[in-house]
Amino acid sequence: MKKRLFTPGPTPVPETVMLKMAEPIIHHRNPEFGEILTRVHQNLQYLFQTIQPVVVLTCSGTGGVESTFVSLFSPGDTIITANGGKFGERWVKMPKAYGVNVVELKIEWGKGVTPDEILAALKAHPDAKAVYVVHSETSTGTATDVKSIAKVIRENSNALVCVDGITAVGAHEMKFDEWGIDVCVTGSQKGLMIPPGLAFVALSKRAIDKMESSTLPKFYFDLRKAVKSWQGNDTPWTPAVSLIIGVDAALQMLRAEGIENIWTRHERLANGIRAGVTALGLKLFSDSPSFAVTPVWLPAGVEWKQFNKILKSKYGITIAGGQDDYAGKIFRLSHLGYYDEFDMVTMITALEMTLKECGYVFETGKGVQAVITSFQQ
Amino acid sequence: MKKRLFTPGPTPVPETVMLKMAEPIIHHRNPEFGEILTRVHQNLQYLFQTIQPVVVLTCSGTGGVESTFVSLFSPGDTIITANGGKFGERWVKMPKAYGVNVVELKIEWGKGVTPDEILAALKAHPDAKAVYVVHSETSTGTATDVKSIAKVIRENSNALVCVDGITAVGAHEMKFDEWGIDVCVTGSQKGLMIPPGLAFVALSKRAIDKMESSTLPKFYFDLRKAVKSWQGNDTPWTPAVSLIIGVDAALQMLRAEGIENIWTRHERLANGIRAGVTALGLKLFSDSPSFAVTPVWLPAGVEWKQFNKILKSKYGITIAGGQDDYAGKIFRLSHLGYYDEFDMVTMITALEMTLKECGYVFETGKGVQAVITSFQQ
Repeated sequence: MKKRLFTPGPTPVPETVMLKMAEPIIHHRNPEFGEILTRVHQNLQYLFQTIQPVVVLTCSGTGGVESTFVSLFSPGDTIITANGGKFGERWVKMPKAYGVNVVELKIEWGKGVTPDEILAALKAHPDAKAVYVVHSETSTGTATDVKSIAKVIRENSNALVCVDGITAVGAHEMKFDEWGIDVCVTGSQKGLMIPPGLAFVALSKRAIDKMESSTLPKFYFDLRKAVKSWQGNDTPWTPAVSLIIGVDAALQMLRAEGIENIWTRHERLANGIRAGVTALGLKLFSDSPSFAVTPVWLPAGVEWKQFNKILKSKYGITIAGGQDDYAGKIFRLSHLGYYDEFDMVTMITALEMTLKECGYVFETGKGVQAVITSFQQ
Repeated sequence: MKKRLFTPGPTPVPETVMLKMAEPIIHHRNPEFGEILTRVHQNLQYLFQTIQPVVVLTCSGTGGVESTFVSLFSPGDTIITANGGKFGERWVKMPKAYGVNVVELKIEWGKGVTPDEILAALKAHPDAKAVYVVHSETSTGTATDVKSIAKVIRENSNALVCVDGITAVGAHEMKFDEWGIDVCVTGSQKGLMIPPGLAFVALSKRAIDKMESSTLPKFYFDLRKAVKSWQGNDTPWTPAVSLIIGVDAALQMLRAEGIENIWTRHERLANGIRAGVTALGLKLFSDSPSFAVTPVWLPAGVEWKQFNKILKSKYGITIAGGQDDYAGKIFRLSHLGYYDEFDMVTMITALEMTLKECGYVFETGKGVQAVITSFQQ
């Protein structure tokens, strides 16, 4: 059976990238690898729309975010974290483990934190050294207006603007320099279309300066070392060579497509999927839907386990379910990364076939029709 | 030109493993991946000769060792680190960055730390919570008698026996349970024959118990989380899926060959190389040579840059040079991982051809003859 992955990380790896990673391994001190790393560094700047360093770390996205906490702060520092899902929650727990004082801005799952809420938190905590927001919260498929939030933070405080862009970079517009972002992290298995194992951290001049005063203990995740190595076109520790070769190939594909085209492609695919599920009478979960992943309420009478089993075993389709309180209540369709319109038609077709088998009543083809119509607009 | 890698990490990746890693990516919560991870966990136990957990982390070997420091100790704890090279040096610096009190046992480069030296350090520092030794120091190609050292530590203290096995596991005998080792770390790009990006940490019951009292701050590298996930056949964070698929294939190859056969193969290859270089009139660098990598003094009149350039540009051979004080003075030939007798003959042949071009005088074929003779014994 042909298998298809529609999860928000890992996302499908383009065939040419897979084969590139399968080439004989080279040594990371070889001049050949130096050329690759130079190109990766340059194309990451393009991806984040920055002239600042974007460092490559060998770890998951979680490790990438940890590197920012331990490199920027000192015990007792106050930061504000907007928590509207599984990842926001993690960015509350993690700095707390390091003795950072976290002001948790709790947001209902499925709602995006607003600039006004951020402003109120900043007024209540004028000592906050940073604000952490999740650009696209994977657990809830919810997007945050990072541009407006960055503006409000910059105009009203000296707090650093820190963005978990793990499921957003490559799907949502990100203009690191223009918007005044200080920190943005992403992972390899998302919009970058390669397997998990690498994290990428963009750092503003303010952030790099701030690292000098940080006293939290660190070694592997010390971004001062990473920035210094970046300046010498190197990495502080042995990097995941094959994944860097993969991301080099993937970044060249992204560059050829053009970053604005990639953003509009993700918006177009997200709109198509939303139109399709809505036409089937299903309800979207998020009030502020992401372009990366679309969570949908399971309709009454359809049981998650059966639904997921049919999708996976009969149709070879892997999607993600709901997490925590929403386990068994929602499902999540991903359109982040290496996808086009035909993949979306496939996904909605499989959804229609599966819902039908689960006893959900609707007119066959309605979903697909809406997807196609959406793409033609 | 055909290219050949003879560096002590990355080491060559078997072709079948490369192709396995190039297969379409699967999701790490998929039952299919669960089966792979189960097999990897079991085969890692075989590799380390233990019934204890061997956890998989997504990071370099350096990150793997860091996970042991932050998970085992508290600020002010005393540990003893034997430092006889670049990596021993790192295991002094790293715990210091976390406020651990490090007793540095400085060893001349090229000499292995002895059980007596360890015993003396333990007597001078009876409060030491652990002793860290490097099984095979990559920078100096020097092996340490971990078995005897573990015995001396166990018989004379309660200190944990912690081993950097990064360049040793899969080359040198390692009997984690039988020898009473508490912590042993390795990396993926060494004896495990896959690209860099994964670290593996074996933990004794004593080590796992000790983690409960550790107060150093940690999150990504928290081995309590890793052990808990291991028990549930999972990883705490998104793992480097393709590398785990690679290590699954590599471990199956190692298991089929048999661990004792792998150790004797490395010993045989190391002996062959040593015989070859000695027959050419060259001098070995280490007094206690490793089975993973053989450092050799450059003969008088041969200049490293020219020597390395001929090897690389004319013959497609990548080797490692000396580090720090020994840069330009020694070169290192690796025989760690996916190598056999014919590869060693190739390496010595290339060495002969290159030395000849550098003006070094010897009888052509002497080195190769000695390698073959060694293999026939």
